[in-house]
Amino acid sequence: MSIQKSVIYDKISPYKAGFQPKGGNWIKLNTNENPYPPSEKVKKLLEEYVINNLRLYPDGDSTRLKEIFANKFNLKPGNFFLGNGSDEVLAIIFQGFFAGRKRVLTPDITYSFYSTWATIYDVGLETIPVNEDFGINTADYLNKNPEITEKEEEYPEVLYGYVEPKKEVKLGVDGIILANPNAPTSLFLKPIEIEKLLKEYPDIPVIVDEAYVDFAPSSTIELLNKYSNLIIVRTFSKSYSLAGMRVGYSVGSEEVIEVLDNIKNSFNSYPLDMISQKVAEEAFLDEGYFKDNIEKICKTRDWAKKKIREMGFKVLDSATNFLFVYDVEAEGLFKYLFANNILVRHWNKPKIENWLRVSIGTPDEMIKLLHALARWKEQSIRKMFDN
Amino acid sequence: MSIQKSVIYDKISPYKAGFQPKGGNWIKLNTNENPYPPSEKVKKLLEEYVINNLRLYPDGDSTRLKEIFANKFNLKPGNFFLGNGSDEVLAIIFQGFFAGRKRVLTPDITYSFYSTWATIYDVGLETIPVNEDFGINTADYLNKNPEITEKEEEYPEVLYGYVEPKKEVKLGVDGIILANPNAPTSLFLKPIEIEKLLKEYPDIPVIVDEAYVDFAPSSTIELLNKYSNLIIVRTFSKSYSLAGMRVGYSVGSEEVIEVLDNIKNSFNSYPLDMISQKVAEEAFLDEGYFKDNIEKICKTRDWAKKKIREMGFKVLDSATNFLFVYDVEAEGLFKYLFANNILVRHWNKPKIENWLRVSIGTPDEMIKLLHALARWKEQSIRKMFDN
Repeated sequence: MSIQKSVIYDKISPYKAGFQPKGGNWIKLNTNENPYPPSEKVKKLLEEYVINNLRLYPDGDSTRLKEIFANKFNLKPGNFFLGNGSDEVLAIIFQGFFAGRKRVLTPDITYSFYSTWATIYDVGLETIPVNEDFGINTADYLNKNPEITEKEEEYPEVLYGYVEPKKEVKLGVDGIILANPNAPTSLFLKPIEIEKLLKEYPDIPVIVDEAYVDFAPSSTIELLNKYSNLIIVRTFSKSYSLAGMRVGYSVGSEEVIEVLDNIKNSFNSYPLDMISQKVAEEAFLDEGYFKDNIEKICKTRDWAKKKIREMGFKVLDSATNFLFVYDVEAEGLFKYLFANNILVRHWNKPKIENWLRVSIGTPDEMIKLLHALARWKEQSIRKMFDN
Repeated sequence: MSIQKSVIYDKISPYKAGFQPKGGNWIKLNTNENPYPPSEKVKKLLEEYVINNLRLYPDGDSTRLKEIFANKFNLKPGNFFLGNGSDEVLAIIFQGFFAGRKRVLTPDITYSFYSTWATIYDVGLETIPVNEDFGINTADYLNKNPEITEKEEEYPEVLYGYVEPKKEVKLGVDGIILANPNAPTSLFLKPIEIEKLLKEYPDIPVIVDEAYVDFAPSSTIELLNKYSNLIIVRTFSKSYSLAGMRVGYSVGSEEVIEVLDNIKNSFNSYPLDMISQKVAEEAFLDEGYFKDNIEKICKTRDWAKKKIREMGFKVLDSATNFLFVYDVEAEGLFKYLFANNILVRHWNKPKIENWLRVSIGTPDEMIKLLHALARWKEQSIRKMFDN
């Protein structure tokens, strides 16, 4: 006998995360993890905590982390919200700002979890096509609040007298969500472009998902004191080498943060465990290690991009810890790399089905990738002559 | 300028967790934490993980934990779902089975987060009063599926002819949720009683929240192979001394677990971080330590209950790691204990406003509590003579 499910259950479309191998000897370049360990300082603090504190509930407000952020970014602790990875933070933002709304703008090529949240939280997403080079044109997001227009009555053949034409109110914009840098394209949009959106829609939430911002030239966080409709989302998973710990955060006005706190407390009071919080504190405070780590990855990225382009592949200019690489037979290349124990990401989706997303690994891992790409290119060229 | 919020935002009523002191020298008996540390084995595994694995995403399926559970409970890995504390597991159950449903039965005195989830996920909760001694009478939950009844047309004075009476279909039961043992009452309901509900509503989800079951005589898990509508929820926060790590789980049929997986993957792919999973594995496998820990707490509980009763307080028979204690001036007693650095829990709510929930601490902590209770009782008696 089948059990009754909820009213929303039939409508959801769960997200599919990248393949996570269990065991095996993989070069894992498919989920944008950091190839280097987190700061040594996270190691030291663990023992003392395990024995003395794990039996107690963690701080549901992540007070210490908020103080550390406030100090670093010259904002107040009340400008920060902590969550179980930036995915949970985004899910909570969708619930607090978008649930039930009809018209939230987002690029057609971006993080695919946005549409999953839109489905479960009943949000109307309006996708705006990226341009031919995969860039986001902010002009496409402006002037989207239509005037009130008049529409004829549906049944004008009435029996008696004059019927006033029905007024139709078209829907205004309910929100915008962008990833910047965008994924999987790796492209960066300058904060001055995002400022145009913040000005155009002053009372409408504009979400900027900055998961990869630490690998990019600058952040929209500088605009936070000027625009109360800006909501920034960040994560410790990439630049702090802590994908395993699930720490994400949002930066916004105190009004915004209050909304997120209330949604969180309607769901789960303690989404961040005690060790995650401590580990994030130590990793964030070790600025020297953080900068070195970022520098190494950006250096490897720019070198790998150059090499891959020299082989004749198209590669977008990356402001992230991954490269977006074109091959006319991308799915074949994906399988070829897989057979060589190299994991990268491929989507069977319009516009990007000929592209692969390749995370930046260590120089050694990237050399193995380059060799595999060279062998693939060689085969392709040989095939050309066979035909 | 205020920012537009979501359509659901106005309707939510966030949960308020127990007071968590930041610093200070408290005897903390207010949130049912375990007074003893977790197994020594959790200590050993941390170092190796930090350096080598934290940079990678955790296993979103918690494969190893499910195998360990399956082995222990003689079920399949597909019978288990892992979440960020039992609160997240319950929130996901509400979304997968109850969202939008009109009639979910629950006792009027129980875990107060149920009504918070009901509000955010649009669930109609029908509260069934507990009996005078705070016990749950399963008979009150039976025969609740009404027959189809007939109702007169709202406007019977029609102009022409006969109008058929409108048929009104009364709502059947959409679900049941019980905590067993119940909180904050500490009372235990025998599985044979819960079996009556499972039989009465074979296609309707019956949730049994077993957060405190390890301190009780038995569990409904034995019924799982017989009833596919049974959904059990458990936590590592109490009996495994791991409130700080946020690990909860659900046990149910494979159909049930699939629903929970799909909701989770519509929200956050990795709610359990890597260390939480490893720590839970070690703690669960160290059965000797677990049994000793439970035994110590049950012994302290039964001794403290006896002593508190001897002072003249009413105390319910507890099958949990806390006591539910009556005092005619419970709020005054709460404040008196607070002034003595002893934290317990009090609710200003009908039926329970004269009761306190007191977690079981170490024998030393309980002796300090007993002394404070004795002083309070002495004062009360003195006041009687003053009047």
